[in-house]
Amino acid sequence: LSDDAAVVLLGGGQRCVLTSDMLTDEVDFRLEVCDPRRVGRKALAVNLSDLAAMAARPVAVVVSLALPRRGGQRLARQLYEGLIPLAEEFDIAVAGGDTNSWDHPLVISVTALGEVAGPEPLRRSGARPGDAVLVTGAFGGSSLGKHLDFQPRVREALLLNANYQLHAAIDVSDGLSLDLWRMVEESRCGAELDLSAIPIDPSARQLAASLDDGVSALDHALSDGEDFELILAVPAGEAERLLEDQPLSTPVTQIGRCTSERGLWRQLEGGAREALAPRGYEHGLDG
Amino acid sequence: LSDDAAVVLLGGGQRCVLTSDMLTDEVDFRLEVCDPRRVGRKALAVNLSDLAAMAARPVAVVVSLALPRRGGQRLARQLYEGLIPLAEEFDIAVAGGDTNSWDHPLVISVTALGEVAGPEPLRRSGARPGDAVLVTGAFGGSSLGKHLDFQPRVREALLLNANYQLHAAIDVSDGLSLDLWRMVEESRCGAELDLSAIPIDPSARQLAASLDDGVSALDHALSDGEDFELILAVPAGEAERLLEDQPLSTPVTQIGRCTSERGLWRQLEGGAREALAPRGYEHGLDG
Repeated sequence: LSDDAAVVLLGGGQRCVLTSDMLTDEVDFRLEVCDPRRVGRKALAVNLSDLAAMAARPVAVVVSLALPRRGGQRLARQLYEGLIPLAEEFDIAVAGGDTNSWDHPLVISVTALGEVAGPEPLRRSGARPGDAVLVTGAFGGSSLGKHLDFQPRVREALLLNANYQLHAAIDVSDGLSLDLWRMVEESRCGAELDLSAIPIDPSARQLAASLDDGVSALDHALSDGEDFELILAVPAGEAERLLEDQPLSTPVTQIGRCTSERGLWRQLEGGAREALAPRGYEHGLDG
Repeated sequence: LSDDAAVVLLGGGQRCVLTSDMLTDEVDFRLEVCDPRRVGRKALAVNLSDLAAMAARPVAVVVSLALPRRGGQRLARQLYEGLIPLAEEFDIAVAGGDTNSWDHPLVISVTALGEVAGPEPLRRSGARPGDAVLVTGAFGGSSLGKHLDFQPRVREALLLNANYQLHAAIDVSDGLSLDLWRMVEESRCGAELDLSAIPIDPSARQLAASLDDGVSALDHALSDGEDFELILAVPAGEAERLLEDQPLSTPVTQIGRCTSERGLWRQLEGGAREALAPRGYEHGLDG
């Protein structure tokens, strides 16, 4: 899957997008210490973030659960107590799903259907050399709370896509540098970053200070992931207008620009640059 | 969820349907003894059966997996080896999904998007007193193999819906009598069955003979579930034509008719009837 959601062409010519995320206990959260309402909310929010990355309007979701037998009914109720308010906030139909019980930890899988306003959804692959690289919000330290309580950038994406020419987008689920690298790879270009411009979340500074492991706040911002902010590739002139307008309630910041040379780069003094390794969460599997 | 899939209205006025089924190891199958290819195929097939019950044409599916860490990559490959040929057979896009690994048994969740040919999908709630109750195929004993290798009745449903006036439909996932009861309950009517007319699968007879537990082949047919055949409510005259035509490669059989009195009934000699308890698999959850 090269985009955050798959584009589906219906018989009537209408395009919609379909995306699915599965969260599992002990991996994506720990029910032992985490309110199930926040888990239910997150399971929906991560899908909405995927739709946002394609500037698709969420229409409906289905929810599938594998519940531990003991206390399963109560757990299901709590998950929905977290999920429903977010669905209502975005006027999304929760179109049923499938509820199962078994003798193992919780699995929650949400699939979201979105529709595309224009003829084509926003994609990862449209960035071009010279485009400004913009981001919403700030990065790093999401494990301190934002990874559960983030606001999916649906409204922001729809507003930006309606009012500005956007070339490409991706949401940051696995790490700012890793997801940016994925976007420019899909676009067959590269990106150079002005590291001093990267908006660092206060949580990243808090994490860096408290862990004292030599990992800086900037490192956290570049690699932590689960920020669920948007990275956008925007034509330079259009980016100027957007940055001037600041049309969102969250700041939009330019952190670099797309290059014809592939890969990730950091800008050095005097126009030079050096390679920057994309870092973040890789979904590894054993053979 | 009162239908097999949820109906979603898109902005352009187009209706589509969305359905999701999650299968878990040790509950819906046992990987220990079951070829993962059959599991992958079944995970898609049960969703296609849900779409068939609404006479919706399958368009795209997404697949989410929670894989045991050990051997997960190989398992994923085998699941897709079973799923892909069925998707190709029905010309369905496998639109990506989400692959995770964890330290627990396999979970596979498939969500299918379908589109509706006419202005409205076929529903459970349209049966009317006097309608004939028709079924495709035969019932019972699916645990001997059919529960994994059944053919979802997608083509059959589309063909019947295009050529005959159908009032209501449901697919048999939990048991012939239980799912029929659900259909007539949603329709606020009842149904009386001619038990001698129910098509009994050879597997039901085999099971009854081998278990020797007093459960008859007919009991298996009425309550086993996972037959994934269709139950249809069809206006009497239309049913006559359909039964005469026998337009499918599988037989269509009348097993009873809808009644104004709610509930399930069995026909007795001389026009009398007695109550019949709906039986099948109930998806129970502990508190």
